[in-house]
Amino acid sequence: MISKFMPKKLFVAAAGAVMLSVPAAAEVSAETAYVFNTLLFLVGGFLVMWMAAGFAMLEAGLVRSKNVGEICLKNISLFGVACIMYLLMGYNVMYNGVDGGYIGTFLPWSADDAAATAAEGATFDANYAAASDFFFQVVFVATAASVVSGTVAERIKLFPFLIFTVVLTGVIYPIQGAWQWGGGWLSEMGFVDFAGSTIVHSCGGWAALIGAIILGPRIGKFTEDGKVRPMPGSSMPLATLGTFILWVGWFGFNGSSQLALGSAVDAVAISNVYLNTNMAACGGLIAAMLVTKLVYKKVDLSMVLNGALAGLVSITAGPDTPTPLIATLIGAVGGVLVVFAVPAIDKLKIDDTVGAISVHLICGIWGTMAVPLTNADASFVTQLIGVASIGAFVSLTSAIAWFALKATVGIRLSAEEEELGSDLAELGLEAYPEFGRGSQKLSF
Amino acid sequence: MISKFMPKKLFVAAAGAVMLSVPAAAEVSAETAYVFNTLLFLVGGFLVMWMAAGFAMLEAGLVRSKNVGEICLKNISLFGVACIMYLLMGYNVMYNGVDGGYIGTFLPWSADDAAATAAEGATFDANYAAASDFFFQVVFVATAASVVSGTVAERIKLFPFLIFTVVLTGVIYPIQGAWQWGGGWLSEMGFVDFAGSTIVHSCGGWAALIGAIILGPRIGKFTEDGKVRPMPGSSMPLATLGTFILWVGWFGFNGSSQLALGSAVDAVAISNVYLNTNMAACGGLIAAMLVTKLVYKKVDLSMVLNGALAGLVSITAGPDTPTPLIATLIGAVGGVLVVFAVPAIDKLKIDDTVGAISVHLICGIWGTMAVPLTNADASFVTQLIGVASIGAFVSLTSAIAWFALKATVGIRLSAEEEELGSDLAELGLEAYPEFGRGSQKLSF
Amino acid sequence: MISKFMPKKLFVAAAGAVMLSVPAAAEVSAETAYVFNTLLFLVGGFLVMWMAAGFAMLEAGLVRSKNVGEICLKNISLFGVACIMYLLMGYNVMYNGVDGGYIGTFLPWSADDAAATAAEGATFDANYAAASDFFFQVVFVATAASVVSGTVAERIKLFPFLIFTVVLTGVIYPIQGAWQWGGGWLSEMGFVDFAGSTIVHSCGGWAALIGAIILGPRIGKFTEDGKVRPMPGSSMPLATLGTFILWVGWFGFNGSSQLALGSAVDAVAISNVYLNTNMAACGGLIAAMLVTKLVYKKVDLSMVLNGALAGLVSITAGPDTPTPLIATLIGAVGGVLVVFAVPAIDKLKIDDTVGAISVHLICGIWGTMAVPLTNADASFVTQLIGVASIGAFVSLTSAIAWFALKATVGIRLSAEEEELGSDLAELGLEAYPEFGRGSQKLSF
Repeated sequence: MISKFMPKKLFVAAAGAVMLSVPAAAEVSAETAYVFNTLLFLVGGFLVMWMAAGFAMLEAGLVRSKNVGEICLKNISLFGVACIMYLLMGYNVMYNGVDGGYIGTFLPWSADDAAATAAEGATFDANYAAASDFFFQVVFVATAASVVSGTVAERIKLFPFLIFTVVLTGVIYPIQGAWQWGGGWLSEMGFVDFAGSTIVHSCGGWAALIGAIILGPRIGKFTEDGKVRPMPGSSMPLATLGTFILWVGWFGFNGSSQLALGSAVDAVAISNVYLNTNMAACGGLIAAMLVTKLVYKKVDLSMVLNGALAGLVSITAGPDTPTPLIATLIGAVGGVLVVFAVPAIDKLKIDDTVGAISVHLICGIWGTMAVPLTNADASFVTQLIGVASIGAFVSLTSAIAWFALKATVGIRLSAEEEELGSDLAELGLEAYPEFGRGSQKLSF
Repeated sequence: MISKFMPKKLFVAAAGAVMLSVPAAAEVSAETAYVFNTLLFLVGGFLVMWMAAGFAMLEAGLVRSKNVGEICLKNISLFGVACIMYLLMGYNVMYNGVDGGYIGTFLPWSADDAAATAAEGATFDANYAAASDFFFQVVFVATAASVVSGTVAERIKLFPFLIFTVVLTGVIYPIQGAWQWGGGWLSEMGFVDFAGSTIVHSCGGWAALIGAIILGPRIGKFTEDGKVRPMPGSSMPLATLGTFILWVGWFGFNGSSQLALGSAVDAVAISNVYLNTNMAACGGLIAAMLVTKLVYKKVDLSMVLNGALAGLVSITAGPDTPTPLIATLIGAVGGVLVVFAVPAIDKLKIDDTVGAISVHLICGIWGTMAVPLTNADASFVTQLIGVASIGAFVSLTSAIAWFALKATVGIRLSAEEEELGSDLAELGLEAYPEFGRGSQKLSF
Repeated sequence: MISKFMPKKLFVAAAGAVMLSVPAAAEVSAETAYVFNTLLFLVGGFLVMWMAAGFAMLEAGLVRSKNVGEICLKNISLFGVACIMYLLMGYNVMYNGVDGGYIGTFLPWSADDAAATAAEGATFDANYAAASDFFFQVVFVATAASVVSGTVAERIKLFPFLIFTVVLTGVIYPIQGAWQWGGGWLSEMGFVDFAGSTIVHSCGGWAALIGAIILGPRIGKFTEDGKVRPMPGSSMPLATLGTFILWVGWFGFNGSSQLALGSAVDAVAISNVYLNTNMAACGGLIAAMLVTKLVYKKVDLSMVLNGALAGLVSITAGPDTPTPLIATLIGAVGGVLVVFAVPAIDKLKIDDTVGAISVHLICGIWGTMAVPLTNADASFVTQLIGVASIGAFVSLTSAIAWFALKATVGIRLSAEEEELGSDLAELGLEAYPEFGRGSQKLSF
C-alpha cells in the first residue's frame, strides 16, 4: 500500500547512473492546481456577483417606498453597465501593461488566452483560466458602483447616474486599481490592500461623497433650524436580508482574493481570511448594537446592519494576517466608527441616504490604516499615501464627471418629481402598488 | 526541486529494454478528477436548486398580493413534486437505455451505482458519483415546471396545477430530454443545446403557452374594446430579488452543464461559460432598459428584469462558444425580443401573468437558433428540427394533459374565487394580512 | 498516452533487485486532499452561515409586523454573539481534550495550528486548515440559537435573549456537543448523529421549549374559553424565502458534515447526503401539504414550509445511509409529525410563535431515532440514551439560565410594550413605517 505521506522525492538508483526524481505524489499537480485556482475564482465570482443583490435589497429596504423601484433598477442596471464597461476597456486599463506606472491600455478584454489554452490542451502557464480571472475581477467593479447608488438615492436621475457609472467603471476605478492590483506605482511602493478596503470600498465611497455634495440633500432632510429629519427606510427585513447577502458574498470577495487555491498554504490562508472576515462582521455588529444602546438608549437596527458591513469593510484590506480576536476588534472599531460617522456627516449637511459613506469610505480608510498593526510588510506611511492618492484621484475625477453631468443633462430630479417619488417620475410604476402610499391611489 | 511544469511523460531507460512511462505529475489523477467532477455537480446542483427560490420571489413580486401566498406554495411544492417524480421515473425515462431512440425506461432511479462505488472504494468508471449526477439533473426538471407556474398564475387551481406538474416532470420533460441529453435521435442528428434553452426553457414555455390558452385570461385582463388592462405586481423588490437569485443560480445551470471539471480544458470551458452567461444577462437587461425608454419614454423595471432573464435564456443553448462580446449581443437580442413579445402575446389575448412565455419560450427558441452563429458543429436546419419537434411534442402532450384536467377536476378557480384571490380561496390565509387589501379586513 | 485509469501500483523490475512502487497517479495526493477537505469546510461554512439569513427571513415572515424589526435584529445579533462566544470558549469546551468525558477546556480558540501549517508549508497532518474547521463548526452554533429566537418571539426582551444566547453558545451547546462530536462518552457508546438532529436542532428545540414555558404565551394567544387565537405572520413570501434559504444552506449543513472530500469514497458519500437531504425536504413538504388539505380542507402554507424544514431536520441525523426513497419517507414522517405537533403544543398552552419546537425538537428526536432503520451501526437504545441525556441536560441548564434571567433583569416585555410591538418598544423604529400598522401613525 502506498502511503499518502510519501517523501516528496524518490530516487531510483538503477543500472549505473540513472537517477530519476519521480513525481511527488504528495503534491498538488500543476493541472490540479490550475483547476483549483480557476474554481476559486468561479466560486468567489458568483459569491461577489450575489453581493449586487445584497446592495439592491439593502438599499431597497433603506429608501422610502416611493423610490424602491428605481433603486432596484439602478442596482441591477449598474451591474450590467459595470460588466460591459469593464469588458470594453476597464480590465485592460487596470491590468494590461501598467508596469509600475499609472494606467494600462484602452482595449477590450479578449478571450484569446482562454481560447488558446483550451485549444492547446492546458499549458498551465497562466495558473488559471483567463475568463475565470476576468469574471472574478468584474464583479468587484460593480461593488464600487453599488456603493454610490445608495448614497445618492431618492433624488438623482436614472440615466445621469448610469452615465456616471460608465465613467466610474470604465475609467476611474480601473485607473486607481491599476496603481495597485495592476502592478502600478503603489504596489511597487509596498501599499497593501488585500481585497479592496481602499481600491473598491473607499473608491466607491469617495465617488459617493462627491456626488452627495454636488447633488445636495433630499428636500426636507435638513430643516432650516438645523435639525436632521429622519426618513426611515421602507422595509427593515429587506435591509436585513441585504446585509446577510453582502456578508455571505464577502467570503468570496475576501477569500478568493488570495488568488490561488492550488496548495495547502493557499488553503490555510483562505481559511484564515474566511474566519477573520466573519469575525470582523460579528465585531462590527455587536459593537454598533452596544454603542447605539448606550448612546441612544434604544438599539438602532439600521445602524447594527451598517455595523456589520463596517466590520466587513474594515477587515478587507488585511484579512489574512490578524488572529480572529484581533479581526473581531478591527471590525468592532469599524462598527463604532459608523455609529459616530453617520450623525457627523449629517452635521455637515451631506445627505447620505443609506449611510454608505460612513460604511465604505470611513471604514475603508480605517481598514487600510489598520493593516500595519498585524502585517509587518505594510507601513503606515505607505498606507496613508495609498489612501490619500486614491482619495484625491477619485474625488477629483468624480467631481469632474458629476459637474459635467450637472452642466449638461442635469443630475437631479425636479422638486415635484422628488416629492412624487422617482418610481412614478421615472419608471411610471410603484414598487408596492397595493400598499404603502400606493394603496391610496390604485384600486384592484 | 521538482518543477510543477514537468513534461507529461518521463522515460526511464534502465537495464536494457525497460521503458516505463511514469505517471505524469502534471496531470489530474483519476480520483482527483472524480472528486472535481462530483464537486461540480454538487455546487451546480445547489445553485440550480436555489433558482427555485428565484422563481418563487420573481412570481411573488409580479402577482397581485391576493395571490402571493398561493404562488409561493406552488413554487415550493412543484419543486417537491418534480424531485419525487424524477426519482420515481423521470430520470430513467430520460437516461436509461434511450440508445438513439425516443424514450428510456419507466423505472425508479436507483442508488445502486453510488452504493457500489462507495463499497468498492472508487473504481472511477463513472467519473463522478451517481447521486451527484441525479442531484444536478433533478433541479433542472423543477426549472421547467417553474416556468409554467408564472404564466398560469392568479386563476389556476392548486391541485390541478400540481397534477400537471406530475405529468410534466415525470413524463413530458423526460421524454423530450431523452431525445437529446439521454442520447436519443436528436443528439445523433447533431442538435446542440448546451444547458437547455430548448430542453428546459422552451419545454416549460410550450407547456405554459398551451396552459394559458386553455385556461383563458384573468378576468378583466382584456377589456371588450380590445384594451389590455395592466395588473401591476405587488412587490418590485421581491421581483428584483428573484431575478438576482435566478442570475446567480444560472452559473450553476450553465457552468456545471460542462459536466466535468477534471482537467484544465474543462476549467477553461466552464470559465468561458460563466463569463458568457454573465455578459448575456447584462446585454439583455441593458437592451431592455434602452428599448423601453425609447419606445415607452419611461423605463419599465419589470421588463428590465425580464430582459436580464431573456439574456440568460438566450445564451443557455450555447454559452461555450461565443466571445464575451458576442454573448452580450446574443443576450441583448433576447432583451429586445422580450420587450416586443410581451405586448404581442397580449395582442393575441393570451394572458401570461409574469411574461414567462416571452422570456423562456421566445428567447429559448432564439438562443437555440443562435448556436450555429458561433458553433461550427451546429447547423440551422438541425437546430430548427430540434426546436420544432420538441415544440410539437410538448405542445401536444401538454394540451392532452391540460384538457384531461379541465374535463375532469377542472383547472380554473371560479370567478368569485378569482376575485377574492387564490390565497383566501384555496389557502385560507393572506400573504400580507396586515397591509395591502388584507389591512381592511383583519385587525390585530 | 497515459490512461487516466492506470493500475494503482506499477512495479519496475530493473537492475536486479530494485523494486519501486511509484506514486499512484490514480490517487488523490495528500496535499490535494488537504485542499479538497478545506474547500468542503469553506463551502459548507458559507452555506450554513447563509442559513442565518434563512432563519431571519422565516421568522420575519411569521411574526406580526410590529415585531419584525426586532426579530431581524435578534437573528443577526445572535449570529454575532454565537461566533464570538464560540471563539472565546465554545470551540475548546467542545473539542479540546474531551477524551471520552463530558467537557473540554475553557480556553479561546487559537489559530496556532493554522499559522504553523502555513509557516511550515503544509505538513497535511491535520488533513484540513484549522480555521476552515472552526469556520464550519461555528456556524452550527448559531443555528441552534436561531431555533430559540423564533419560539420566544414577540414577547421576549432583546438583551435578556442575547444573554441567554451567550450561555447557550458558550456553555450549553458546546458541552453536549462535546459528548458526541468532541469524542465524549456518547460517541464512545456508539450514538450516531451525522449532522446534528439532536446536537443542533433538538438542543435548540429544548432550549426554546423551556424558554416558551417560563416566558408564557403572548397576550391573547390562548383565550379563557380554551381557544387558540391565530396570529398570522406578516409576510408569506419572506417566510417562503427563509425556507428556501434554509433548504439550500442545509446542503452545506449535512453535506460538509462528511468532513472530508479528499477521496472518491467521500465524494460518493457527500453526493448521497445531498440527494437524501433534498428528497427528505420534498417528502416533508408534500406530506404536510396533503395532510393539511385532508385535515383542514385548505392547504396551510406556513405548515407546508414547516413541513419542508421538518423533512430537513428529520434526515439530519442520518443522511448518509438511506436510499433516496427511504429518505423521502423519513422526511414525510417529519412533515406529518409537524402538522399534528403544532396544535398539540398549542393544546398544552405553550406558545411557539413560529412552530420551531415542532420542527426542530420533535423532528430532531424522530430523525435521531430513525437512524437505526437504515444504519446497522446505530441502535435504538443508544439513540434513545443520546436523545434523553441531551434533552435532560439542555432542559435543565436552559431552565437555570432562563430562571436566573427572569429573576434578575427580567425576560418579558411589559404588557404595554408587547401590545405596542417590540419594534417601537425596544428599537424605536418600525419595520414597515409606511404600511401595515405604521401607515396609520407616520406620514411622509
